[in-house]
Amino acid sequence: MVNESLELIKKEIIKIEETLRTLQVSQHPFINQVSEYVLFSGGKRVRPLLCVLSAKALDPDILSSIYEISLLFEYLHVATLLHDDVVDGAEFRRGRKAARNLWGNQATILVGDYLYAKALKMASSLKDPDIMEIITETTLLMSEGEVLQLLHLDDTELTEEDYYEVIYRKTAVLMGCACKVGALFASKNSNFSQSLYHFGLNLGMAFQIIDDLLDYTSTETGKDLGKDFKEGKVTLPVILSLKEADERDKKEILFLLKTKEIDKKDFQRICELLTKYQAFEKTLEKGKEFISKAKEELEKLPPSPYKEALFFMADYLLRRKK
Amino acid sequence: MVNESLELIKKEIIKIEETLRTLQVSQHPFINQVSEYVLFSGGKRVRPLLCVLSAKALDPDILSSIYEISLLFEYLHVATLLHDDVVDGAEFRRGRKAARNLWGNQATILVGDYLYAKALKMASSLKDPDIMEIITETTLLMSEGEVLQLLHLDDTELTEEDYYEVIYRKTAVLMGCACKVGALFASKNSNFSQSLYHFGLNLGMAFQIIDDLLDYTSTETGKDLGKDFKEGKVTLPVILSLKEADERDKKEILFLLKTKEIDKKDFQRICELLTKYQAFEKTLEKGKEFISKAKEELEKLPPSPYKEALFFMADYLLRRKK
Repeated sequence: MVNESLELIKKEIIKIEETLRTLQVSQHPFINQVSEYVLFSGGKRVRPLLCVLSAKALDPDILSSIYEISLLFEYLHVATLLHDDVVDGAEFRRGRKAARNLWGNQATILVGDYLYAKALKMASSLKDPDIMEIITETTLLMSEGEVLQLLHLDDTELTEEDYYEVIYRKTAVLMGCACKVGALFASKNSNFSQSLYHFGLNLGMAFQIIDDLLDYTSTETGKDLGKDFKEGKVTLPVILSLKEADERDKKEILFLLKTKEIDKKDFQRICELLTKYQAFEKTLEKGKEFISKAKEELEKLPPSPYKEALFFMADYLLRRKK
Repeated sequence: MVNESLELIKKEIIKIEETLRTLQVSQHPFINQVSEYVLFSGGKRVRPLLCVLSAKALDPDILSSIYEISLLFEYLHVATLLHDDVVDGAEFRRGRKAARNLWGNQATILVGDYLYAKALKMASSLKDPDIMEIITETTLLMSEGEVLQLLHLDDTELTEEDYYEVIYRKTAVLMGCACKVGALFASKNSNFSQSLYHFGLNLGMAFQIIDDLLDYTSTETGKDLGKDFKEGKVTLPVILSLKEADERDKKEILFLLKTKEIDKKDFQRICELLTKYQAFEKTLEKGKEFISKAKEELEKLPPSPYKEALFFMADYLLRRKK
């Protein structure tokens, strides 16, 4: 079963990649150049894959135009990455120079706007008001979330609830939306589309939690280890350890968090402190909880190899190293 | 007739302003603060007005929700202004500090994204695929235009055709879209909505041409006189004079255009040179041509005071001083 799911996922990713290569982003070489640089920089195509698998779980013989539709979520995702990089002043993205480092902030902002507009144009070509509604609702939640995240920057008082709100808007809603749009395109059964929506939301929560965990524990992400901490960004491992830490350790964590230049030894120390309070295990545990909720939603779907592939994705997410 | 039209326009603008004040941009005070700063900075509400008048020209008893709908064009417009200011590094906007000068580039980019998303959410709530299609097509053309404009920056070889392409995307398509959406909301007659679309497009072309002319000739715009020229921006008055100028004058215009620090005397000199080649009259003439085309489209509509008000707007545009 597991091997079958893996094969099926590989096949779908190949089709998604093929479609991405055929589809022209724009008629203008410069827009294509910048877009392709970010579109082909090792993205895992999680969002298009969720959209395709959700659609096929409800209708295995769905029109092949689903591949093109699924890509609107990659365009939306990449558009937010471009603006994020400008806002964060990022130097690198996925182990390569950030686009803003090659073409400047101006072009990066505007190509981000273009990709966003392109995604919405693709969505509107479906002429389905329900699809349009969930997509515009999602982009509104996301953009509001981006502003709130900027205001929360360096906020060491961030609670677990605040954190969930941030990652809900940053990651979960787009994954939920990708699933729901796939479902709406495939079937008019609103129970199924709601189940797939909630599956995607919970999967997205877990995805971001694991992403934030890997920032401390994995050297395979293409990001610098401890990048978030070095930037003073408060994520779940820090929140969970601050909750339990005694006054002295709490002070030390907060002090290191505010320190501008963190060296290897400082980072080792923070990992020691977080380990002392089992922050990494507890973070993984929270991720698992969201994955359980996601899988509960999946149970409501009719049996199919695509449903199994979605289960596989959910489990895989907890084991991923990058 | 003229006085009636003016009264009618004043009344509609008051309703648009009232609706704008009632409508909450977001639940978040910070997003509201930044948005309201740009939304209430002396904008002329041209786009919402075009939308309302177009709708009422086809159905004078239209639902009062047209006022709320019309505002999506103000939101879209302001979103582009916010991103423009970041891209241009603008210090001022409409005689006041630019938003980026008060809240920084990061917040300005993200609130721009938010307003854009908000506008599209408002559009999708109408659940009308034709409306959604023209709006997403328009935002795509606009964002593509923004990138092209960035690439053309400081391009002294810009032809009259290139210039029209730039202002078509920068200004005309959104005004055309505002008219068309008003028309589509009011009536299923696609001849009328196409006429109003082309009316808006041509009006938009004239609007931008006059705007670029006023940059040389008016002290009432709230902008520095000659701002475009000082930034090396090539607009129609320069293009038309370069076309006719002898080698010596051409060299001087190009030299002044590339000069970083333009003083009052330099600007007087450039105005002399442009006057020598009747660039201002000729620019006004081009504006008049587009207004004629716009009015031809209007002729196709059934008679109504709202149609007359649109004629009035077209004529007024040529006489405006700011």
